[in-house]
Amino acid sequence: MKDSDIIQLGHGAGGSLQDDLIEFITKTVKIRRVGTGIGLDAFEDGATIPLSAEDADKEIVLSADGHTVFPLRFPGGDLGKLAVCGTVNDLCMMGAHPIALTSAVIVEEGMRAKNLREIMDSFNHTAAEAGVAVITGDTKVMPKGTLQEMIIVTTGIGKKPKNRKILNSNVQAGDKIIVTGSVGDHGIALMAARENIELGCRLESDVAILKPLAEIAFHYSDLHMMKDPTRGGLAAALNEVATKSHVSIWLKEEAIPIKKEVRAVADILGLDPLEIACEGRFIAAVAANQADDLVKALQTHPLGIDTIIIGEARADRKGRVLMETIVGGTRFVDMPLGELIPRIC
Amino acid sequence: MKDSDIIQLGHGAGGSLQDDLIEFITKTVKIRRVGTGIGLDAFEDGATIPLSAEDADKEIVLSADGHTVFPLRFPGGDLGKLAVCGTVNDLCMMGAHPIALTSAVIVEEGMRAKNLREIMDSFNHTAAEAGVAVITGDTKVMPKGTLQEMIIVTTGIGKKPKNRKILNSNVQAGDKIIVTGSVGDHGIALMAARENIELGCRLESDVAILKPLAEIAFHYSDLHMMKDPTRGGLAAALNEVATKSHVSIWLKEEAIPIKKEVRAVADILGLDPLEIACEGRFIAAVAANQADDLVKALQTHPLGIDTIIIGEARADRKGRVLMETIVGGTRFVDMPLGELIPRIC
Repeated sequence: MKDSDIIQLGHGAGGSLQDDLIEFITKTVKIRRVGTGIGLDAFEDGATIPLSAEDADKEIVLSADGHTVFPLRFPGGDLGKLAVCGTVNDLCMMGAHPIALTSAVIVEEGMRAKNLREIMDSFNHTAAEAGVAVITGDTKVMPKGTLQEMIIVTTGIGKKPKNRKILNSNVQAGDKIIVTGSVGDHGIALMAARENIELGCRLESDVAILKPLAEIAFHYSDLHMMKDPTRGGLAAALNEVATKSHVSIWLKEEAIPIKKEVRAVADILGLDPLEIACEGRFIAAVAANQADDLVKALQTHPLGIDTIIIGEARADRKGRVLMETIVGGTRFVDMPLGELIPRIC
Repeated sequence: MKDSDIIQLGHGAGGSLQDDLIEFITKTVKIRRVGTGIGLDAFEDGATIPLSAEDADKEIVLSADGHTVFPLRFPGGDLGKLAVCGTVNDLCMMGAHPIALTSAVIVEEGMRAKNLREIMDSFNHTAAEAGVAVITGDTKVMPKGTLQEMIIVTTGIGKKPKNRKILNSNVQAGDKIIVTGSVGDHGIALMAARENIELGCRLESDVAILKPLAEIAFHYSDLHMMKDPTRGGLAAALNEVATKSHVSIWLKEEAIPIKKEVRAVADILGLDPLEIACEGRFIAAVAANQADDLVKALQTHPLGIDTIIIGEARADRKGRVLMETIVGGTRFVDMPLGELIPRIC
């Protein structure tokens, strides 16, 4: 298969054309198996991850994520990078060390092979950067007009110690709430690109592998919750953890990092930056006595340089998120009903 | 969310509407976690499967599969049942005992909630029938016109003993090749429904969970290969294992079970039944001295009642599949280039 080819229905039909397609989209995968397991290079119907005696105190962690973004390439990333980051980050947010990915790639008939290869190269390079193997997958081709461009669905596999409890339901009253950087960059960069909004500066998606930053955080024994504020943004993420942990979360508006260009585009489009997706940030809840140390540790990594405490969890008004505004009032930050920006992550 | 609702973009956007959708499509899941792990009921960003000392001699087995079928309902099954069977069967074909599924459900804006629920109920009931937990998932909604109806991508997780080697690359010269039932039923039933071909009888897809049949086969120490002939049918499956195992496979045409109505529809449509997908059969390679016993054992189960030896593996003409025809000649059964029937599994 060559860059100049066009994807045909036969490329998804289980014959020799499909073998060509699989070889074409996986040839840049760097890590193809886990240990002595069966991996991508075996071309079996699946893959294996060998276990050993030292896994007896561990759990396998799994996270599934469907990715569909329009346009396929956006400032700061593309669908391939997004698909790996989204899934690897979800594993990290559960306290896991990511090991491997499975991927299902669904493509529209008529797609240019070159475009597909570029997205999959980005997928494969991002997986290598994250140190995760791509061990098995699936490809399907849908008839022209029944799918716009392509979808990548990834399942991530990691391992974590059984006694590490980093959960949406584990925030304790008194915990400090931190965020590792500015919010809304991904969603706004995508919308600005889609709507051709001139910014006078380059606004890029924050899409990134959070693994190195998460692994710094794992050292803190009283880290109770980590979550990446993707669809629905900070507002959805905080409401979810407030509800699940039976606490309230009190934010200080002045502390929440929002880039001025993000705020400007959000204003133009009538969007609240707190409801806009990030793809390279996380929020965390940590006991107050470890909060300053954690913040400083995260700031040592380029991805966490802007880490800041944005609020705290309290025992009253369980399930609510409240914000002390810059002008001195207090307002609720509600769960978004559903942000009406499709195909964003 | 009610059956009379219509899926909106907001149902996939990370807010409270999305929570409604997730609750709606998962409420009939019967097994929601593995052991003491985090499962679907925790509504975290993923799930966990606890390991123990007795897993030290095991491997985790993973298989990913994207499912898109048109129409969503066909004689004998629907997309939901197909998505579970396809993935659970792939695990079994690797010698694994299926444990759990992750699912990503991608839906077109405007789909009727009732239709979505029926497909997901079928998914959930089939998972319960297979005894596998549905532990985590993802939902996305794509704008109307960018996806026809829906896609389900499942990743299956199982465990197998490390020393069980049932592989496409492990067929030995001298092995007998068996098939557990008639071939081509799924693809032809789907095509007949799609083309409104009157059959004068009811032809149903063979889609089924192969786990009970596979677990009978696992008892045979010299079982070398199992494979379900899905996309590309028997021809693709046998060519794949012949190539990977460096053997030839010699078939006896008279032994291959093909229903007369399957043959009739295939003739009308100009298709070769050997290239048509099954979703509830497997082929296997087993040492000659265990073949008759294995066939008899599989025939004791309703799913395997028509199990039969269809050929054998030989050391010459490596990588080729040959068939001794009913009229006494020998012909090659080639790898299909790519069957031109889209959205079949």
